[in-house]
Amino acid sequence: MVLTVYIDLLSQPCRALYITLKLHNVTFKPQYISIEKGEHRTSEFTQNISRFNKLPVIDDDGFKLTESVGILRYLAKTKTIRDSYYPQDAKKQARVDEFLEWHHTNLRSLCSPYFIRKWILPKFFGKVTPADKLRPYFNQMVACLDNMERLWLNSDGLYIIGDQLTAADIWAACEIEQLTMTGYDPKIGRPKLAAFLERVRNETNPYFDEAHKEVYEYAELDKKNSKL
Amino acid sequence: MVLTVYIDLLSQPCRALYITLKLHNVTFKPQYISIEKGEHRTSEFTQNISRFNKLPVIDDDGFKLTESVGILRYLAKTKTIRDSYYPQDAKKQARVDEFLEWHHTNLRSLCSPYFIRKWILPKFFGKVTPADKLRPYFNQMVACLDNMERLWLNSDGLYIIGDQLTAADIWAACEIEQLTMTGYDPKIGRPKLAAFLERVRNETNPYFDEAHKEVYEYAELDKKNSKL
Repeated sequence: MVLTVYIDLLSQPCRALYITLKLHNVTFKPQYISIEKGEHRTSEFTQNISRFNKLPVIDDDGFKLTESVGILRYLAKTKTIRDSYYPQDAKKQARVDEFLEWHHTNLRSLCSPYFIRKWILPKFFGKVTPADKLRPYFNQMVACLDNMERLWLNSDGLYIIGDQLTAADIWAACEIEQLTMTGYDPKIGRPKLAAFLERVRNETNPYFDEAHKEVYEYAELDKKNSKL
Repeated sequence: MVLTVYIDLLSQPCRALYITLKLHNVTFKPQYISIEKGEHRTSEFTQNISRFNKLPVIDDDGFKLTESVGILRYLAKTKTIRDSYYPQDAKKQARVDEFLEWHHTNLRSLCSPYFIRKWILPKFFGKVTPADKLRPYFNQMVACLDNMERLWLNSDGLYIIGDQLTAADIWAACEIEQLTMTGYDPKIGRPKLAAFLERVRNETNPYFDEAHKEVYEYAELDKKNSKL
């Protein structure tokens, strides 16, 4: 049976997984689930797809799995994923893992709270966070992006881990790219991050742009609106 | 060369790693670094041990690695770690990974902010968070523990994944156990969680208690003080 992948491309881990699958020509059937419409919260989803009510979820011939990074590791063991993308060698894998773990408690945990309050909540749920309450979330996002520039991109390598594209780059780029929807440009003042994002996009296109189609559209629309 | 492990047992990921190493008779040289004294922030630490200024860090014959879960995966590939504890089979490993990833953005990200504000900041840095500002952190911790009970422990298995102890159990138990230092008992009203914590402790002693010695002492001291 073909691999089924439940996704919403407005979700960062979904985009990272989508690009991974496309880059490696893994055959899969995408099942689009709208987070905006709450389709991941229906009782049908809870009972038949995932009790966690989160995306992405894969269904590999009855084996259902959540958590994008866990899914990445499962795919690396069961499908044809380039070894350089997620290495099986202990030390090489450890370097990619080190970033993916850092990502969870840094990029993901410190940038998305601002994104959610600044963009998701007002856009989809009409809930506006006052500027003074947004400020601490904005500050922690900025500090985190500065750490990305300083701790991970401050070497001679083309990518986060050396000169070859790995899963670390995709998970990072998808997280950072979505911040443009809030009107904030993470590239300004961060030359290494700017070059890195451009490199990842070029290396993974057309899939990167395919995955970010809605993100770009929203970012463009918001830019236009802010000029009205 | 013997594996060097930089730890502070007041840190949850350090305790989880310590218990893992002890459970598997991995020979290692612990190097105790005091977070309270800021020893992880010195320029010597930054330059020679880790630019991330976080614990734990391992040094395996010159190969330095941070992030406890990344370290776990590295150890599973390079030392003698029971396969049932962190399986190499794709599907079995995926189930443990699924929890470890969830742990990062749930137990770790939603419980430790309360722990830090309620206990670490006043105890070590004299910084008290007012009750009304603590409340949202308390609420998110409670909701997360309820999810732990409902989503992960609501099956017939003895542990998070089936009937055998895995790394998932240790990372979870170490995170939850430290909350007792704030005076909050996560077991009350959560019978499955209570039984689970007891089971993990019994299965992994004397190492669980060794790792939690300081945690227990602080919890006891605070209990006494609150009765004065």
